[in-house]
Amino acid sequence: MSTTTTGTLPFYCPIESAIHPEVAEAERRALSWINRFGVCRTPEEERRVAGTRSAEFYARFVPEADLEGLWITAAWVYWGFAFDDARCDEGPLAADPAAFAAMAAQVQQALEVPGPLTIRDPYAASLHDLGERFLAYSGPVQSRRFHHAHRAWLSGVQWQIGNRARKEMPTLDDYLAMRLHSAGGEPTFAMLEIAYGCDVPAAEMDSPAVCALTQMAILVAALDNDRHSFSKEATLRHTDQNVLTVLQAQQACGPEQALHEAVALRDTVMCRFLALRAKVMANGSRDLYRYLNGLGQGIRGNIDWGLRTPRYLNPAEPEAAHARTIERLAWADEPVTGDLDPRSLPSVSWWWQDLSL
Amino acid sequence: MSTTTTGTLPFYCPIESAIHPEVAEAERRALSWINRFGVCRTPEEERRVAGTRSAEFYARFVPEADLEGLWITAAWVYWGFAFDDARCDEGPLAADPAAFAAMAAQVQQALEVPGPLTIRDPYAASLHDLGERFLAYSGPVQSRRFHHAHRAWLSGVQWQIGNRARKEMPTLDDYLAMRLHSAGGEPTFAMLEIAYGCDVPAAEMDSPAVCALTQMAILVAALDNDRHSFSKEATLRHTDQNVLTVLQAQQACGPEQALHEAVALRDTVMCRFLALRAKVMANGSRDLYRYLNGLGQGIRGNIDWGLRTPRYLNPAEPEAAHARTIERLAWADEPVTGDLDPRSLPSVSWWWQDLSL
Repeated sequence: MSTTTTGTLPFYCPIESAIHPEVAEAERRALSWINRFGVCRTPEEERRVAGTRSAEFYARFVPEADLEGLWITAAWVYWGFAFDDARCDEGPLAADPAAFAAMAAQVQQALEVPGPLTIRDPYAASLHDLGERFLAYSGPVQSRRFHHAHRAWLSGVQWQIGNRARKEMPTLDDYLAMRLHSAGGEPTFAMLEIAYGCDVPAAEMDSPAVCALTQMAILVAALDNDRHSFSKEATLRHTDQNVLTVLQAQQACGPEQALHEAVALRDTVMCRFLALRAKVMANGSRDLYRYLNGLGQGIRGNIDWGLRTPRYLNPAEPEAAHARTIERLAWADEPVTGDLDPRSLPSVSWWWQDLSL
Repeated sequence: MSTTTTGTLPFYCPIESAIHPEVAEAERRALSWINRFGVCRTPEEERRVAGTRSAEFYARFVPEADLEGLWITAAWVYWGFAFDDARCDEGPLAADPAAFAAMAAQVQQALEVPGPLTIRDPYAASLHDLGERFLAYSGPVQSRRFHHAHRAWLSGVQWQIGNRARKEMPTLDDYLAMRLHSAGGEPTFAMLEIAYGCDVPAAEMDSPAVCALTQMAILVAALDNDRHSFSKEATLRHTDQNVLTVLQAQQACGPEQALHEAVALRDTVMCRFLALRAKVMANGSRDLYRYLNGLGQGIRGNIDWGLRTPRYLNPAEPEAAHARTIERLAWADEPVTGDLDPRSLPSVSWWWQDLSL
């Protein structure tokens, strides 16, 4: 196990990197869109939202989408980061589960209700506008899938906020169950179909095999983000719930051992993802292939983006030095192995069942 | 506006009453099922759960289902009432949004995770068992629809519990938005497809028109329940959130006027439901017809059941006297009209848009 100067480990991810060629134009359109709604109240907040580089993020998920499909989905990623910072991880609602529940319900409603609507809250108003665009661009089925995914995300955040309010450190299994929702991976991956304008048949999309693959991609990306954001969150002092702190508490081990176990867990899931995906792809429709391919692009794109985005950089390291670090970064050839068997964790063990289409 | 001795108004519900002929056997199987899991800790709790007459309730929703489809869906209704009493409307979590969020997430997870699972909590364990039965009986698509509906229900309850914790009386619009989820209508109606073993095409099920019809049926039934349960809840002193108390607070009016406005609102929605449903039925598939027919049977069945079930009876009135009251009850020929235009309420006004398949 080798570490770099930033504490960043090599990633095991045998999926090639790709990025949409029109990322700059998508960024311009998405930022112009979000700035119309008053979501950012100061130039500093505007810089912070732009600094998430959400267009680059999603351009790596859907390198072959049409520009229109790319920018409206990138717009939601900007929205999601802004919302997360203002109302989930930070801000007055971060430890107020009752107030969060009411706010989240109203935001979700704004997303779902179609047609003209007067909404004062800039987050709800902009999300409503995006909901209209998604419905118009991709039709009711993909739009509803996104609604369901969005609600599941908010319910995960609700759980996390409740834990924070009660100063509750979850077990590893509960943490994974929570993170599968709170990480925001569900709406992010539900937008694959929207960006590509494709339609995975319900019998495939709702099959346990495809649900498992979606969850695996979410968990791998979430665990990668836990590593990315560890230095940033440590600086801002909200390290309450992170796979590394959870593992240290549960296994009574130090940060080095926790990092090793977290990477091993993540790599084990990655391997299962690749094996099951190959099996399912061989029997699925063309649109399912595109979707499952997008899950992989998302895993890889999330890492590439996370290594470069200001959001996750270590504030102690100058950007130029960081760029040199990344260039030296070698991708791992082999998965890391650890002591922890994910098949002992009820929230994820079912991924190793005999699943198929 | 005429009232009976129990304070029950005649309902405008031009849908014929029907009930499944094998209701007794479905009741036997469903009660035997729920009693296997230790959900009820005392004979008194067992009597209370049986007293919901959930099999009769759902036998009125799906009078033509197979017995297997009926009893497994009736089993969820028993489960839902028990859960509601123990962990939502009453019990230690009724005003603890943080604890509720964690518990609800675990219960939802138990529903969604397939395959063998060891769960200690009797509510989660029994729901997991039911999730397995739903998946085996109706397949992954209807099963996932039920999952989504179930999560939406719990998020509505979460909002309600947050309001209770903050002693917040919602506006009428917020109350309706909340009640559309917290009433439990989504999982209840999502079981129509499961009970009948039918499969409404996603393009129909997810269309705004069918979503609107589902929501209208939920709201009509929820407002009818608000009336049914008003006397019971007044006795138990948890009248904090009910359309009648909300209307009295918002319109600064007395209980008589609030009741009139609530009935008028409900009848206006009922009329829109009937008109839009006829239009959509004319263009939809055979399975959509069955589903939309089930929404209507549910509205009517919910009333018939509510008038007879011990859960909603006025404790001051002996059962025999109540039976005579029901027999004298005349069904209204015409909808009641009121001052309140639902098209002024953003959460429901979109139902009056030009919707079609």
